Parts: sequence; C-alpha cells; structure tokens
Amino acid sequence: MTNSTRIPKVTITRLSIYYRQLELLEFDGYRMASSEKLAWLCQVNPAQVRKDLGYFGEFGVRGVGYDVIELQAHIKKNLAINRDWNVGIVGIGNLGSALLQHQNLPIRRFKCVAAFDNDHNKIGEFTSTNLMIRDIRELNETVKKLNIEIGVITTPPSAAQGVAYLLLNARVKAVLNFSSARIRVPESCLVENIDFTAKLDILTYKLSNS
Amino acid sequence: MTNSTRIPKVTITRLSIYYRQLELLEFDGYRMASSEKLAWLCQVNPAQVRKDLGYFGEFGVRGVGYDVIELQAHIKKNLAINRDWNVGIVGIGNLGSALLQHQNLPIRRFKCVAAFDNDHNKIGEFTSTNLMIRDIRELNETVKKLNIEIGVITTPPSAAQGVAYLLLNARVKAVLNFSSARIRVPESCLVENIDFTAKLDILTYKLSNS
Repeated sequence: MTNSTRIPKVTITRLSIYYRQLELLEFDGYRMASSEKLAWLCQVNPAQVRKDLGYFGEFGVRGVGYDVIELQAHIKKNLAINRDWNVGIVGIGNLGSALLQHQNLPIRRFKCVAAFDNDHNKIGEFTSTNLMIRDIRELNETVKKLNIEIGVITTPPSAAQGVAYLLLNARVKAVLNFSSARIRVPESCLVENIDFTAKLDILTYKLSNS
Repeated sequence: MTNSTRIPKVTITRLSIYYRQLELLEFDGYRMASSEKLAWLCQVNPAQVRKDLGYFGEFGVRGVGYDVIELQAHIKKNLAINRDWNVGIVGIGNLGSALLQHQNLPIRRFKCVAAFDNDHNKIGEFTSTNLMIRDIRELNETVKKLNIEIGVITTPPSAAQGVAYLLLNARVKAVLNFSSARIRVPESCLVENIDFTAKLDILTYKLSNS
C-alpha cells in the first residue's frame, strides 16, 4: 500500500475482523486461507475480501489463497497495531474498572498506563490492575509524561464533553467514547463511539427473521 | 421488503448507523435527508446508502431524499427494534453493573429485567437499578417467567462457555458476549461478540496516517 492510499473506515473495520479470524485460523493450525473461507468466516462476500486485501497489493496465490501468518502481519502493519499504544482511561466507575481488567486490551497491545477520576474518595487508591487513580487535574502533565496517545472516556454522559476538552487540551488526538453522550471535538481529534446496541440490533433482526 | 429477503449482517450494521444519524438529524430539525448527506454523516458512499435503503423498496424522492421520520420507522420495523426486548445479564461484576446502568439500553428499548451471578455475596443484593441479583441456578425458570429473549454474558472469560450452555438450555436464542473468550454454540443460537478493540484499530490506523 502506498502512503497516499487512504483505507476507508468500513474497510478498516473489516480488516480488523479478518485479522481476528486469521488469528483463530492460525491457532487451529491452518497455514493458508482462501478468500472464500475468510469471507464465510467473516460473513462478507469473497469479492469484498479480495477487494479489501487488494489494498496491500497482489500477494494472495490464485487457487491457494492467503498465507495466514503473512496476511496477519500485513494487516497489523497497515492498521499500526504492530506496536504498543499507551491508553489513559478517564472515569474509574464500573465501566472504567471493567476495561482496566479486560484482557482484550493487553492482548491487542493497548496498554492502560493511567487511570483518572475526579472523585476524592478514589484518587490515590489503586485499581485491581495496580494503577494509582490520578486526579483528573493531573491529566495534562500525565499525558505528556507517559506518552498517552489514546484517551478513553468512561464517565457518566454529563461529564463526557468536559473530559473531551481536557484530552484535547493535553493534545490527545484520539478518543474512544464509551459514554452514552455524543461529544464534539475539532476535526484534528479523532473520536470513535462505542454503541453496543448496534450489535443488539443484529440479534433482534435475526431473531425476528428466523 | 418481503419476508424472504435476508438483509446481510454488514448491511444491518449500516442500517443501525443510519438510524442513529437520522435520530440526530431529526433532533436538529431536519425533515429530509439526501443519500449524499446520510452517506457523508455515516462515512460510506452514497451509492451504498441507496443500495442499502433499497431493501425497503422505492420510497426516497429523487432530488429531495428521504423523509427523516419515515426512514427511521422503516429501519426500526425491519430491524425489529420498534418494540421492547427483555434482556438478562449474567455476571454482575464491574462490566455487568456498568451495563445495567448504561442509558443506551433503555433508550433503545432493551430492558434489563434480570441480573444473575454465582457469587453468594452478591445473590440477593440489589443493583443500583433496583434489580435483585439472582442465583445463576435460577436462570432457567427466570428466563421463562420473565420472557427473556437475549442473554448478555459479562463474566470472566473462564466462565463464559458454561454460561452460554445455561442460556442455551433455557432456550435463549440470542447472546451478546462481552467476555474476551469466544463461545461455541449450535447454529440455532445467535451470538454477537463485543470487541471494542476493533474501534481502537480505526483510531490507530488514522493516527498513523494523519
């Protein structure tokens, strides 16, 4: 892929999904995977798989498919998930605490290096992952000191926008927002919102049509 | 849409996204939305929007677009999110507690009607949403009594598969799995896994290419 080629967001999401399936294939002992197999596992059509993987140039072998390990490496490199990313979590309530413990983060090399809250009963306490909860007022200096590149908002909805401004001020350029409130930031800052009810919509559709 | 037309999963996901943007458009006072506008808001291409909405037949007006309220109603009806769904949450740790309180669930008419755990220190206690935490051994009868159609797994990964079997036994046909373990169920049961690190992949890709 040349640097000037921008992969659309929907394609990135599919690449993430392919990557997860490739990991499972490798775990199950597969060396090669056809676009048909990958398509079936990921519930997309084979032409889409070939088109998406076409961003990396021509390296699948016709009639044989893709090298399971090589393809993982390509995706990891292109999505920039082949290195550690330092993450700071703001709002250490139930959701923040759950994320700190969630094994998918370290498995994917997202390292929670700082936890923030504004509750004086929490500040100075230690999380179950042995991080000291910091005062939200220390966010700016902590972001710089620990090289935090991604901020995660797990506050109540009413606090989300304020936290977004604090992260912006500290020059955090990417925010994952778990709160139910939408936040507004300048275009220079990237935001992704987690709304797991979209997954529930898939279930309700299928339940109603089965 | 005829009953025999199956909407692919990726399309359902996009319909969910359109729906959320249509709500925001309605909130902002818009009556109509062009496929271009919707495409831009949802970061897909306009042809894709028109194709996706084509599942509902021809009701957009050329040169004017779609009626914001009518389109929401169509999507809600087709995804079967125009009614309440009863949800049971298994595993009332941090994540389960956070979900019980998350405002997106009731907003989308997903009603958490039961909470289960196997920890005797929790059973009989009340959640902050005033649900009594039930013994996991009561799952079978509770599912029937309360007409629970969707089970949510928020246990540690080691417990996820066992809970999946319990839900299956109780004839719950749809499972949302938040644990970091993959679960295996027969095809008659629908499973969606929540892996929020896919959203982080979008951020890391963009951070590395901006």
